[in-house]
Amino acid sequence: MKLHGYFRSSASYRVRIALNLKGLSAEQLTHHLRKGEQREPSYLAINPQGLVPSLQDDHGAILTQSLAIIEWLDEIHPEPPLLPNDPLRRAHVRAFAQVLACDTHPVQNLKVLARLRELGLPEDKVTGWAGWANREGLSACEKLIAEEKGPFCFGDMPTLADLCLVPQLGNARRFGVDVAAFPRLLKAEAAAKNLKAFADAAPERQSDAE
Amino acid sequence: MKLHGYFRSSASYRVRIALNLKGLSAEQLTHHLRKGEQREPSYLAINPQGLVPSLQDDHGAILTQSLAIIEWLDEIHPEPPLLPNDPLRRAHVRAFAQVLACDTHPVQNLKVLARLRELGLPEDKVTGWAGWANREGLSACEKLIAEEKGPFCFGDMPTLADLCLVPQLGNARRFGVDVAAFPRLLKAEAAAKNLKAFADAAPERQSDAE
Repeated sequence: MKLHGYFRSSASYRVRIALNLKGLSAEQLTHHLRKGEQREPSYLAINPQGLVPSLQDDHGAILTQSLAIIEWLDEIHPEPPLLPNDPLRRAHVRAFAQVLACDTHPVQNLKVLARLRELGLPEDKVTGWAGWANREGLSACEKLIAEEKGPFCFGDMPTLADLCLVPQLGNARRFGVDVAAFPRLLKAEAAAKNLKAFADAAPERQSDAE
Repeated sequence: MKLHGYFRSSASYRVRIALNLKGLSAEQLTHHLRKGEQREPSYLAINPQGLVPSLQDDHGAILTQSLAIIEWLDEIHPEPPLLPNDPLRRAHVRAFAQVLACDTHPVQNLKVLARLRELGLPEDKVTGWAGWANREGLSACEKLIAEEKGPFCFGDMPTLADLCLVPQLGNARRFGVDVAAFPRLLKAEAAAKNLKAFADAAPERQSDAE
C-alpha cells in the first residue's frame, strides 16, 4: 500500500495510527502542503480535492477521506477493532470522531486559514479563528465522554475516536488553546500516547518532519 | 423516535431522507437556528455541540452527528441498504459523503458564517465564502463519480452519497453557485428527487418551513 500524506496533516496522522494498530505497513509518499504540492496535476488525478491523505491499495485502487480509509481498513483487517460491536456504541464513537473530523479540523485546516488571510484578516485573527474552532470541538468532545470511564475515549481499547482526538489535541496546542480545560480528553490522550502505534505515527517521528 | 432538527439544516435533511427511505417515522422537534434555540441549555444537554440533528431512539438513547445517525439506522434497519456490500465501494461512497459532510458543509454552516460577520467581513464576502466552499466540494464530487454510470451517485439505488448530495446542492444554489457546472451531480439529484423519500424530506415540505 501507498499512503499519500504529510507529517503535520492531522488527517494523515489518523490513518498512520490506524495502519500501526492493524500492524500494516504502507510506503509513505509525502506532499508538502505549504509548498502546494498537493495541487499538482499528478496528485489531483489521485485525489481531486487536493487533500491528504489518500491510500492506494495493493491493486492500485485509490481511497480518499481519512475516516472512510480507516473504516475500510477496519472492515478488511478487523483485528484489533477500531469500532465497538454494539450499534449504539459504534454510533457514539463515530459521532465523537465526526465532531473533530467534520466540525473542527476542516474549519481550521491550512486551506481555510489561507482563505482567511486572502480576505485580509490579520495573523492574530487567523490564529484566533483556529483556536476558536478547536475549543468548540474539543469542549463538545469533553462532554460527550464525561461519563466514560476510559482510559481511552470509549473503554479500555483505542477506537476511531482516539485516532481523531490525538492529532486534534496537537493542533489545538499549536494554536495556543489551553487544553488543560479538557481533563477527560487528556486522560485518553495519555493512554493513547503510551502505545507504540500512536507514538510511531506522531508528526515529529515522520521522515518528512521539519 | 424523536428527531431534533430544523427545516433548512442540510444535516437534518440527510437524516430525514434516511428515515423516509427506511420507512421509519420520528417525531420532528424543531430548533430555530437563526433564533439560537439550539443553544438553549435544555438542548445543549442533548447535544453539547448545539447543532442539529440529534436523534433520540425509543429507549431515550441520544445520537448525534448526521453521518453517525445514518450509519446506525443502516445497521439496525438494513433494508434498503444505504451503503454497498463491497468494502472498497463502501469506502468510495463514504468518501464522497465526507467530502460534503466534512470539508464542505461545516465550512459554510450558519455558525461559521456568523463568525465571519463578527470578524467584520461584509455580506458579499460572507456569501462569496459560502459559494467558494460549495464549489470546492462539489467540483471534487463531480470528479469522484465521473465514471459512475448512475443514475444515482453510485449505481441504481440511492446511498449515503445521495443523502449528502441533494441537501448540499440546495445550499449551493442558495449561495449563488452555478450548479450547471456539475452535470453528473445534477443527474444523481434528478434521480433522487423522483423518489418520494427525498421529496418528502425537502426543507419546503417541513412543518417548520418559513
